[in-house]
Amino acid sequence: SPLESRLFDGKINSKIELDSPKVATMDKLVPGDKKVYCRCWLSGTFPLCDASHVAHNKDTGDNVGPLIVSVDKSG
Amino acid sequence: SPLESRLFDGKINSKIELDSPKVATMDKLVPGDKKVYCRCWLSGTFPLCDASHVAHNKDTGDNVGPLIVSVDKSG
Ligand code: FES
Ligand code: FES
Repeated sequence: SPLESRLFDGKINSKIELDSPKVATMDKLVPGDKKVYCRCWLSGTFPLCDASHVAHNKDTGDNVGPLIVSVDKSG
Repeated sequence: SPLESRLFDGKINSKIELDSPKVATMDKLVPGDKKVYCRCWLSGTFPLCDASHVAHNKDTGDNVGPLIVSVDKSG
């Protein structure tokens, strides 16, 4: 499980793109966009947040949460 | 240390806004912006990435990296 991995080897990620040497995600936004991005590496909709951080925080006492990025509409 | 915390209690975050019940970061971008956001919770410039993920990946065998969000210039 992700928690067992964190306890066993200190990895944050035991789920997302495990074949990748480094998961760097690129995204482009346009005016009017608002996106909620995962920073707990547990989301089923990664790179977006699906609220999986809530269970992680409850299980461990952690306080992590998403990054929310928006771009105002022009005009 | 962050690694000891991950090994001891499974927390991802042992450094950022520890007094906050949940670290949800809001950011606004404008056309022409490109920002590199931390997802390892170790950055000295959080919420931005300062490449601290490199040492974490080396220490643990993890494969985490930043989120890069850009907004094209209009016109
Ligand atoms: S699901 Fe990972 S931060 Fe919300
Ligand atoms: S310093 Fe945390 S992802 Fe780069």
